[in-house]
Amino acid sequence: MIQTKGYATHDSNAKFSEWEFERRDVGPNDILIDIEYAGICHSDIHTAKNEWEGVGMGTMYPLVPGHEIVGRVTQVGDGVTKFKVGDIAGIGCFVDSCRECKPCVEGFQQFCQKMAAYTYSGTYMDRVTPTYGGYSDKYVIDEGYALKVSDSVGDLAGVAPLMCAGITTYSPLRRFGAGPGKKVGIVGLGGLGHMGVKLAAAMGAEVTVFSTSPSKEADASALGAHHFVVTKDPANLEPLAGTFDIILDTVSADHDINPYIAMLGLRGTLVVVGVPPSPNSVHSFGLIFGNKSIAGSLIGGIPETQEMLDFCAEHGVKSEVEIIKPDYIETAYDRTVKSDVRYRFVIDMQNA
Amino acid sequence: MIQTKGYATHDSNAKFSEWEFERRDVGPNDILIDIEYAGICHSDIHTAKNEWEGVGMGTMYPLVPGHEIVGRVTQVGDGVTKFKVGDIAGIGCFVDSCRECKPCVEGFQQFCQKMAAYTYSGTYMDRVTPTYGGYSDKYVIDEGYALKVSDSVGDLAGVAPLMCAGITTYSPLRRFGAGPGKKVGIVGLGGLGHMGVKLAAAMGAEVTVFSTSPSKEADASALGAHHFVVTKDPANLEPLAGTFDIILDTVSADHDINPYIAMLGLRGTLVVVGVPPSPNSVHSFGLIFGNKSIAGSLIGGIPETQEMLDFCAEHGVKSEVEIIKPDYIETAYDRTVKSDVRYRFVIDMQNA
Repeated sequence: MIQTKGYATHDSNAKFSEWEFERRDVGPNDILIDIEYAGICHSDIHTAKNEWEGVGMGTMYPLVPGHEIVGRVTQVGDGVTKFKVGDIAGIGCFVDSCRECKPCVEGFQQFCQKMAAYTYSGTYMDRVTPTYGGYSDKYVIDEGYALKVSDSVGDLAGVAPLMCAGITTYSPLRRFGAGPGKKVGIVGLGGLGHMGVKLAAAMGAEVTVFSTSPSKEADASALGAHHFVVTKDPANLEPLAGTFDIILDTVSADHDINPYIAMLGLRGTLVVVGVPPSPNSVHSFGLIFGNKSIAGSLIGGIPETQEMLDFCAEHGVKSEVEIIKPDYIETAYDRTVKSDVRYRFVIDMQNA
Repeated sequence: MIQTKGYATHDSNAKFSEWEFERRDVGPNDILIDIEYAGICHSDIHTAKNEWEGVGMGTMYPLVPGHEIVGRVTQVGDGVTKFKVGDIAGIGCFVDSCRECKPCVEGFQQFCQKMAAYTYSGTYMDRVTPTYGGYSDKYVIDEGYALKVSDSVGDLAGVAPLMCAGITTYSPLRRFGAGPGKKVGIVGLGGLGHMGVKLAAAMGAEVTVFSTSPSKEADASALGAHHFVVTKDPANLEPLAGTFDIILDTVSADHDINPYIAMLGLRGTLVVVGVPPSPNSVHSFGLIFGNKSIAGSLIGGIPETQEMLDFCAEHGVKSEVEIIKPDYIETAYDRTVKSDVRYRFVIDMQNA
């Protein structure tokens, strides 16, 4: 077994302290990754505080969160073909799945019918061994569930958040055809939203940011957005009725999605990737006139996540990050909840 | 001008009587159609009773309804190339549009940005001349907005409802890929639903009918459905969770759509074509887990309506109809509101 140093919380108070645990030995198809950076995703916070118990996703403690992981390969099993020692590797939201069901076979492992082994607060496919996440110095993972990162990307801190925030926004943008000649709206400029802006702009789309905070206009522009709309005044939205091909709604606080449906053009799609606590009230009329859609999207499978990383390497897309040490996790959580981060905290695991 | 005999209501009491009016002379690009059959669509009833005034679609009286029209061409203008005298021609929900906006150019005339000239209770593109519908003996229409019907279809009564009920269900089934290997659910077995069953089955999909009426099981089977599910007991729906590619919801009474979202499989789509009075409450979770969508769909443009008619001719698909005379319109309206028709009334305009 491989001794691993992690940062864990032992209950829903989300107080983190150093915690030693073991990872499995490197099997024939496994790689061992020395973790360099782990991003702090809002899901980490919900899980640490056990806030998803009500929707059947209670937290398994001790919890080592972290599913935006990047590092260097330091050991490979005999059967490994995709990685060699020294390669950069990433890990996202899951580390295994059944490999046999239709979603797995089609590359949508996130929807594995036996439930994927989530990177933390889950179990491996033996359904017994708990998973511990990336707030730790090492991870052992089957090479088929690790992502390759090009050496050309340079510093890795901004790469870590691609593993969740990146794929969460990339997947629906690709699926619904973001590209030249398409108008894309991004609702909310946080961890997800800022990746949505960068990715949609890199795909060649005309990007509009919808935000409640006028103060974010300069940032939106710097990230690549072409337009910025303050949503607090409905009069700002009316002239945009019927004009968007895709609106990617990243907001996880309760809000009315109907104004965004109204801004969709013919066959336009509103994609929801945030999960507000309350449901939305949607009238059929709003969808029927214009053949419009509302779609949900959850991260991506391994093939698409790899595609996203390759796209990001090619286009120089990374997350904007604030690098912290593990003793700052609790403060980072508080600041993330208050949206006081531009735009993602990543924990430096090598200089812990 | 061409003297035309129609059946009109002069107010929201929806009492119909014979009414003479004039249609324009046959212009260079026009055809004159002797109407043989006009279907009775639920929209006719809403319009006759002025029930859509609240959503900005107040009725223009006198009203001659009817937008499921089929007949024979009796005269063609000098510039007409698509039709000759004796051809079968159909008319659907609109008879002209601006021809210049993006939706018109792309063949989605139903979403013309200047608003299409609806077949009744609308105006032609001069925005002055009122349109009168198919409960009449003749229609003059630009050939570009008339549909061709193959001589091979035989009796025309079952063809009339294709012009609205047919295209309303065909368009989303095609758009979302109904075909061999796909599971399609049809919610509601009325005028729209019965066409959805026939079309999805003709496309090669495995078709399940969801109905509140156990009495419709034999009909569903006869129409081509492979399975029949009575929706009143939620226990009937649970085993079907995650199994459908497309669910086409044709119900226009208030109902909860969330059980249908739950029955969608990976990347499945719930298409709403009915317009219940109240909005639905939809939680993001239900869409995100499975990358599911809810889509609206409104009839179809001219190219797709023609495609549908050609498909129906090739596959022998027609509507199940009860043929009536004009003096029965009011009774037919009452029976349609009570769902007491299997599955569409069509008015015989030649033997009026």
